[in-house]
Order: sequence, then structure tokens, then C-alpha cells
Amino acid sequence: MLSPWLTDWRGKYHGRAAAMLSPATTEEAAAVVHLCAEAGAAIVPQGGNSGMVGGATPDASGDQLLLSTRRLNRIRSLDAAAGFAVAEAGVILENFHNAVLEQGLRFPLTLGGKGSATIGGLVSTNAGGTQVLRHGTMRALVAGIEAVLPDGSLFDGLAPLKKDNRGYDLKQLLCGAEGTLGIVTAACLRLVPAAEDRCTAWIGLESPDKALLLLRQLDAAIGPPLEGFEIVPHGCLDAVLRHIPQTRHPLNAPHPWYALVELAGDKADDLPALLETQLAIALQNGLIDDVVIAKNDRESDDFWRLRDSISEAERAEGPAIQHDVSVPVDRMPRFIADNPARLAAAFPGARALSFGHLGDGNVHHHVQPPADSDGPAWLAAHGEDASRLIYRHVIELGGSISAEHGIGQMKRDIFAELDSPARLAALRAIKAGLDPAGLFNPGKLIA
Amino acid sequence: MLSPWLTDWRGKYHGRAAAMLSPATTEEAAAVVHLCAEAGAAIVPQGGNSGMVGGATPDASGDQLLLSTRRLNRIRSLDAAAGFAVAEAGVILENFHNAVLEQGLRFPLTLGGKGSATIGGLVSTNAGGTQVLRHGTMRALVAGIEAVLPDGSLFDGLAPLKKDNRGYDLKQLLCGAEGTLGIVTAACLRLVPAAEDRCTAWIGLESPDKALLLLRQLDAAIGPPLEGFEIVPHGCLDAVLRHIPQTRHPLNAPHPWYALVELAGDKADDLPALLETQLAIALQNGLIDDVVIAKNDRESDDFWRLRDSISEAERAEGPAIQHDVSVPVDRMPRFIADNPARLAAAFPGARALSFGHLGDGNVHHHVQPPADSDGPAWLAAHGEDASRLIYRHVIELGGSISAEHGIGQMKRDIFAELDSPARLAALRAIKAGLDPAGLFNPGKLIA
Repeated sequence: MLSPWLTDWRGKYHGRAAAMLSPATTEEAAAVVHLCAEAGAAIVPQGGNSGMVGGATPDASGDQLLLSTRRLNRIRSLDAAAGFAVAEAGVILENFHNAVLEQGLRFPLTLGGKGSATIGGLVSTNAGGTQVLRHGTMRALVAGIEAVLPDGSLFDGLAPLKKDNRGYDLKQLLCGAEGTLGIVTAACLRLVPAAEDRCTAWIGLESPDKALLLLRQLDAAIGPPLEGFEIVPHGCLDAVLRHIPQTRHPLNAPHPWYALVELAGDKADDLPALLETQLAIALQNGLIDDVVIAKNDRESDDFWRLRDSISEAERAEGPAIQHDVSVPVDRMPRFIADNPARLAAAFPGARALSFGHLGDGNVHHHVQPPADSDGPAWLAAHGEDASRLIYRHVIELGGSISAEHGIGQMKRDIFAELDSPARLAALRAIKAGLDPAGLFNPGKLIA
Repeated sequence: MLSPWLTDWRGKYHGRAAAMLSPATTEEAAAVVHLCAEAGAAIVPQGGNSGMVGGATPDASGDQLLLSTRRLNRIRSLDAAAGFAVAEAGVILENFHNAVLEQGLRFPLTLGGKGSATIGGLVSTNAGGTQVLRHGTMRALVAGIEAVLPDGSLFDGLAPLKKDNRGYDLKQLLCGAEGTLGIVTAACLRLVPAAEDRCTAWIGLESPDKALLLLRQLDAAIGPPLEGFEIVPHGCLDAVLRHIPQTRHPLNAPHPWYALVELAGDKADDLPALLETQLAIALQNGLIDDVVIAKNDRESDDFWRLRDSISEAERAEGPAIQHDVSVPVDRMPRFIADNPARLAAAFPGARALSFGHLGDGNVHHHVQPPADSDGPAWLAAHGEDASRLIYRHVIELGGSISAEHGIGQMKRDIFAELDSPARLAALRAIKAGLDPAGLFNPGKLIA
């Protein structure tokens, strides 16, 4: 009966659980945690079970308890004038989007799993997505938090305070803590006015270097309306066109790289004129080689579909290992340029491809086995070492081995192996301080 | 010889120190901390010594060591294209402003003590100031941090990553930790384009309620260029006009309340037209009663001088207790309206006045003794209880007993007495986890 919740979304991790607890109120959640603390029972919190790193899957012992937030699913309040809403942990992102939109507002965080991802999970994993360039990750959108702490006490930090200097910011500490320090039961979230208009361009250009210069130009000239800036290498677009039905190349000829740029704002901003002017300058300066601007919403959606289908197309190409990493934005072109050669030097024939959120310094980096190899066998033999090489490169550049997916159980050991001892010791000390018995999501994030 | 650094800026706290350490590099700072950790010596970090809560003043034992960041005073890098600069802890805010301005950029945080306050202190106290409405507190401007942890290890989190999900955000944890968890040695700070133009208005209106409606109107219609929104009661303006030379009332008649509004942006934004249009609407709707827009920079400065002189004028009026508190923005009019009556009910004749950053929900709240009383004697007898009443009111409304000044030693005990046990226990657990020997700034923030 519990089986749907004992395997992660990617199907990589399988666990067992003594039972699933589904409190319907914060008080019930606190009472349950209190009982578990007394009994020494470990708790694995779970929202939509759509995480990417096995962070919500219990271990194999069968001793752990699943705590589902699914019944904590009320939107407690929505203050359109102040631009805040309080949503409980189990509210599904898409439902929240719709509720907010009905009031003429927008919650500016979205991602592929919006139909299942929940507010509590999004907070606990500090979720990113495609609107981070302008609006930041979940961390920037959380104005208040309510959570049950490991001893069963309730931390009520829901009131949205713009200034609050009472020491350590527990709200920020719980964001991205993957349920290891507290179980988020509700969050007060910032809302922005609904965007009346958007304008999307698909651009052909030579390199990530030039894409970065274009990003800087648009950022300086356009500012806040610039909401999306993604880059795609020709190889990825090609795979999409081959494997995904009803897709077509937006330009007349291939280019080594593409940028997908989106502005959002009011009708009065005249976004098409803004974007056309800037792209004309970029063409003239040789930053870009070709461009097409979407004439309507359908064409915008078509451009995004090309971007959003890359993972699916790559899967159809054959097995690969995926890496969700980040480096400072200005080092991203170098990272993308250096990686294939580094990889090929250590693993002859292996291919590297990168795409993603240039504006956030967040690249999704795939490694494919040599074309003439037995893919799964190659990955079993070399996959882990290839990942290690990429993660070392990321750390050399001051980057993060987890940009937006988190650590969970998937990256726990490599994180402990490669990251700086000072950071790891600090994380362990915080965990030991707040959860000395180790009952909240044990085995995740930090061991 | 050490005496200037043994008393806080307000002259309220006096301490002694065994010695003052002034490392000139991060490595020296780490080495010094390492030695102290081995010897069990307590360290009190100090930047510009301009804090408001005695957070950088050692205790009276003479056993503690002062660690001054004054020689850590280099701006290590400034990347105008990326909009980031790395400044060491001892860089003085005003010097940083100037260095950044030379590159056509702006660091959008400023406050009265900018000539002495240092980057490290501003980070460690999560400083606020008058530009928080648009740009947030220090927390929002810190893109990376370098710090020495209590065991002498160096945490290098300087690289500015827009996405980084490696667990607990140590950067955010160190912001506002008042040197109790780590000694910040450098920070990577976000910069914005220098503002070409500003437009300032002094507005007469009836109440904080109407001021809040005006704030909402301007925020919705003008958005990002709205950088300042302060409110001042007539009593405060009156005190300024009486005590501060060369000041004059900007309007022709008195009003119960005033709002000081400032926009900042490019010349192309036509800020005066933007503001005039919106204020005409507000006049028509009866939100405001009178307004004057500054014709030039000098008039803008004059308006701000009225606002910035309130503390000085109030001091000239006689003794008072000051409270730096915050509540959710939409509860601020109620807080301001209810406070005088609550206070007078408990302390007949005592007067309450509030002014400050309405847009941030941060009110500076002064309590004056009854007019016919011996002020200092009244404050000695009743001051603490009057403060307790105000702090209880703040907490009832979900607010913070320290909006921007921090806890330090001044509010440590009242914080421990009044705030929620769950929050206090969590702070103590974090402190015990990261600094088990209690060597970093002992006696501050949390006891």
C-alpha cells in the first residue's frame, strides 16, 4: 500500500517504512514529531515525491517513518495588497499558481514537476527552475516559515518581516535543509503582479562566451523584465529535432549554439520593441548571428518546448550521466569550453554536453559513453569516475556540485569526499546541534 | 591605549581586553583564531565599533581578546560587468561606496555611520539603513562570504553562485550572527548601476493608514524605482524645526503625519513625471493632503536632513528610550495607533512616538517620560518595564524586538525572556554546535 512513496521519482532509490503519517494540521505534525522524538523513531518527510536526489525516500531498514505533508494542503491566506500568501507544506505548486493568478498575481517560481511538487518540498530543497534569473530561488521568495523542530517544538516564523535581526536566520537555515533540521509545515511566500505580456526570442550564436556578453548587454539595457536566458548547443537541439515529434528548427540554418531569451512585463513596457532594439545592436556588434522573435504565445511555447525536451531527447539518444552543477556566471563559458577536452583526455571517446541556465551559472552537464561502446557497461565501469572529474572541475572554479537538485542520498558521499572540510564540519556541527539524536531524514545530505 | 575600542559608540558599555589582535590577512586571522582555540581564549571581533547594541565591546573580565578587522582593508576585486566586488572585512562603507562609484556602480546600502562602519560589521549585523525597501538588507546583497570558524578553519564561500544547494546556507547563517559563529574576513557584494537621477517628495497626510495605502499605490504603479518611504509624525518634525538650525517646514501648514518618498533611476525614466502623476492621483483620492517635490538635489538633501535629524532633535527634547522594532508592514499602522494608548494606560503621562521606515515595517519607537516628571529618574524607575510592554506588543503582532540593530549585549536578556522558546532553543543549539567552547563573542546575542 505504501509502495508509491517508497521509490523516488527517478526510480533509482527504493526503501521501506514502518508506516506513513499524514498529519492534517501543524499541531498534529508537532504532536507526531514529539512522540517520535520520545520513542527515538526516525522520520523521513515527503512532499510530492518528485525530488531528483532520493531525498524523500526512506532507507531499507523498514524502521523509518514516512511523514507525508499531503493533508497539510490549505492556502491559509492570500493578501493581494501586501503581496504575500501563506500556503501549507502540502499545497501543490500548480494549484498555488492558479489560486494566486485568480487574484491577478503570480508566484514567480516554476519547474517541470509543478503538477506534483509541493510548497514544503520546494522550500526544503530551495528549488530553482526557469525564473531564477529575475526572481531568485525559493530562498528569495520565502518571507516566513513555520516548521516543527526535531524535539517536536513549533517554530512560528510565518510573519513576513522585511527587517528582523534576532540572530541566526532560521528561515534561511531551513530553506534547502532537505528536512534534516525541521519539517516545514507552512510558508509565507512573496507574490508579484501577474505578467501581462511576454516576448521570447530564439537566437543563433557562436559560443557561450558570446552568449555571456549578450546576457550582460540585455541585463544592463533591459533590466528587470529579462526573466529567462537559456543556452543550448547545436547537438542538443539536433537530438530534440530527431526524437521529439512536431518540433522544428526555429532558424533557417544551424548554429553552434542557441540562446533562448524571454522578457516578461506589462503591455505598456512594449517588450517586443525593447528586445528587437537590443538584438539589432547585438547583430550589428557580431555578438549573435541570427534571431527569430516569437510572434505569439504559441511560438513562445514552441521555443520553450525545444529547451524543455532536451532531457527526454537525450534519454532517447542512449544512456548518459547527468550533472546539475553551478559555477559563477562569468566562469561558465570557460567551464563549458574546457570540460569536453578534460573528459576526453581521461576517458577517450566520451562526450560531454552542457545546456541550461546561463544567467544563473547553472549548467546541466551530460556525459555520454563513447559512440562505439556498450553504453550501460561503460557507464557502470567509468561513470562514477567521470562524474568525479566533472565535480572536481566545478569545485576548482568555486562552484557547487549541486546547483538546484540538492544532495539527498544521491550526492551525499561525493559531497563528503570532495567538498571543503570546513564546510562539511560546519554542516555536521549544525545538524548535531539541532538534531542530536539524528531522527530527521537520517542518511540524507550529510553523513 | 586600547581605550577607544573598549567602549561602544553610544558610550553605554565599557569592557576590558587582554590585547587587541589586528591580522592583516585572512591567513593571519585564521592562525590567530587557531591559537586562541587551542588556548581557550575568547575573541570579540570588532569592525568600526559603531554598533548600537554593544555587540563589539568585550566584557569586564579583561580576559577576552579584541580582534580588530581594521587592517583587513583591501578591496580585492571589482568586476563591473558581473556587478560584484570582493571587499575585506575592515573596508569602511564610505570608502567602498566611493571605489564602486568610480566604476559607475553603486553599492545600495547606506546608513548614518557609513564613515566608520565596516563591511565585516555590516555583514555580521545584517545592517539595514534607508535603501532596504528596494535593495533589501545586507543579507540580500551578500553573494559570497569568507570567514574564520571557531576552530580556526577557513570557510571560503566567496564565489558568487546564484544557485547552490549544498545544504545549509552558511553564508546566510553568518549574516547577522554578530560574530558569535564566525569572523567574517571578506564578502563578495552585489553592485547595481549608479543612479543617474532621483526625485524626492515631502508629503502631508492624515495617518499611517493612509501612508500605507499610498505606499501600496506607488509600489504597484512605480515599482523598482521606489527606493525610500519614510514616515514622520508632526511631533518629530516640530522637534527638528525647534532644535536643528537651518531647517524649515517644507509645506505651508502642519499635518498630523508626513511621508518622505524617494525614487531613484535613470534620466530616461523621467522620475518627476512618474511621481507627479501618482501623487496627483493620491491627492484626488484623498490619500494625501499636500505635497512638495524637491526641485533639485539640495532640496532633496534638505528633506532627508529633516528625517535624519529626528534622533538628534529628540535627544535635545530630553531623555527617552529608543526601540528599534519591526512588524509586518501591513500591521504597522495598527502598531503605531495602538501603542500610545497602551503605554499611557500602564504609565500615565508617558508619551510614545514612532517614525521611520514604513516600507520595511521598521519603526523607531521612542518613549518619553511624562512632561511633569524628573525624566532620568522616571526612566530609571520605569524604562525597562515600558520597553517590555512595547516588546510584548511587537511580539503579539508577529514582529521582531530587533529590526536592524541586532541583539548584542543590550537586548540579550530581554530577547531570552520574551521570545519564543523554540527560536531560542534553536539558536542555542546552533551556537553550541558550531562553537562548543563558546569562544566567539561570548555574552552576546544568546546566553
